[in-house]
Amino acid sequence: MTQLLRVQNFTVSSDGFGAGEDQTLDRPFGHADPGELFAWAGATASWPHRTDPGGSRGLDDYFTRDFPHNIGAEIMGRNKFAPRRGPWPDPGWQGWWGDEPPFHTPVFVLTHHERPALTLGDTTFHFVNDEPAAVLERARRAADGKDVRLGGGASTIREFLDADLVDALHVVVAPVTLGSGVRLWTSPDELRDRFHLEVVPSPSGVTHHLLWRR
Amino acid sequence: MTQLLRVQNFTVSSDGFGAGEDQTLDRPFGHADPGELFAWAGATASWPHRTDPGGSRGLDDYFTRDFPHNIGAEIMGRNKFAPRRGPWPDPGWQGWWGDEPPFHTPVFVLTHHERPALTLGDTTFHFVNDEPAAVLERARRAADGKDVRLGGGASTIREFLDADLVDALHVVVAPVTLGSGVRLWTSPDELRDRFHLEVVPSPSGVTHHLLWRR
Repeated sequence: MTQLLRVQNFTVSSDGFGAGEDQTLDRPFGHADPGELFAWAGATASWPHRTDPGGSRGLDDYFTRDFPHNIGAEIMGRNKFAPRRGPWPDPGWQGWWGDEPPFHTPVFVLTHHERPALTLGDTTFHFVNDEPAAVLERARRAADGKDVRLGGGASTIREFLDADLVDALHVVVAPVTLGSGVRLWTSPDELRDRFHLEVVPSPSGVTHHLLWRR
Repeated sequence: MTQLLRVQNFTVSSDGFGAGEDQTLDRPFGHADPGELFAWAGATASWPHRTDPGGSRGLDDYFTRDFPHNIGAEIMGRNKFAPRRGPWPDPGWQGWWGDEPPFHTPVFVLTHHERPALTLGDTTFHFVNDEPAAVLERARRAADGKDVRLGGGASTIREFLDADLVDALHVVVAPVTLGSGVRLWTSPDELRDRFHLEVVPSPSGVTHHLLWRR
């Protein structure tokens, strides 16, 4: 079986930004409101953070349900893990997700600054300073035959796209305009030369973009 | 966790038939051409019967990929298992699927005619003569906390809908007209009083209908 590198449920604004500007500890998405960006996911029955029963079981739910399916490792950028750049100022920082991060696999965090591995629940974060291809190779070995999720942010996805390492993307375009921030694309048409593209509007108001290698 | 009874990837013609008339050994779907009905699924990367690599990874693929996910048992009608009605004329009949049926769970086959259980690969068929609610109870126990798939055919799904036992349905309407056969519905609108309904057209030409209990 081929091990794919997949982007899943990555949500951007209608003008193509995965996060706003000025990320801080209190605002991991900068000036963007994650509640607005991710409302589509939070409304589904399979949203992993939901605390009440219920939730929709329509199209959007297929995507939140698919999130952990056949995924053996994740790769994420430093800015998805922590609010600050440069050397690790606070060695006690353990990510945004509390004691039980929702990954449940090894996670490879791209950083230029070394740090020992960190285990929380059944997620272990490895901090790696290497080229995308080398990190992917390491994540594939850790994934034990399963696919690898490319978790973002937008800059990290672009870096792996530039290196032509991404096999499939699911990008959700939310009905929100940000004006500035960390850009994934100006238009998904930029990827049509290398990827098939299906554009599927959801009754919830978001538009699912499904891309896979030609 | 709630254990749902779910219909998945059940394909009907645009006029609402799950199979044609005159089922025989050679034509399990009667006068309907299963190649036409299921072309949408066969084109996807996750179609379990595909023999070559490749296949699409768009919307349709999410549904074929979801098929085994969190399913612990299946319930099917007699006519999905075998071409003939009445007492078992050929005790050697082992279903349409060869030595490795694609279910990989216990399967409960509704029949008025008793027969010992049959194991093929990691699928065990149990032949049960009981009311829908009692069969569902037994399938739930066998599913060990996972959901139960209601595998069809159309008459069986209608029987469980009539007993108000179905929690969610994914029905695929293919661009094929049959004129007669085993009917699931005249229109999905018949179910709107009890179910939410999302209608999602796929670029492949089929229309996915997602229904879940109000």
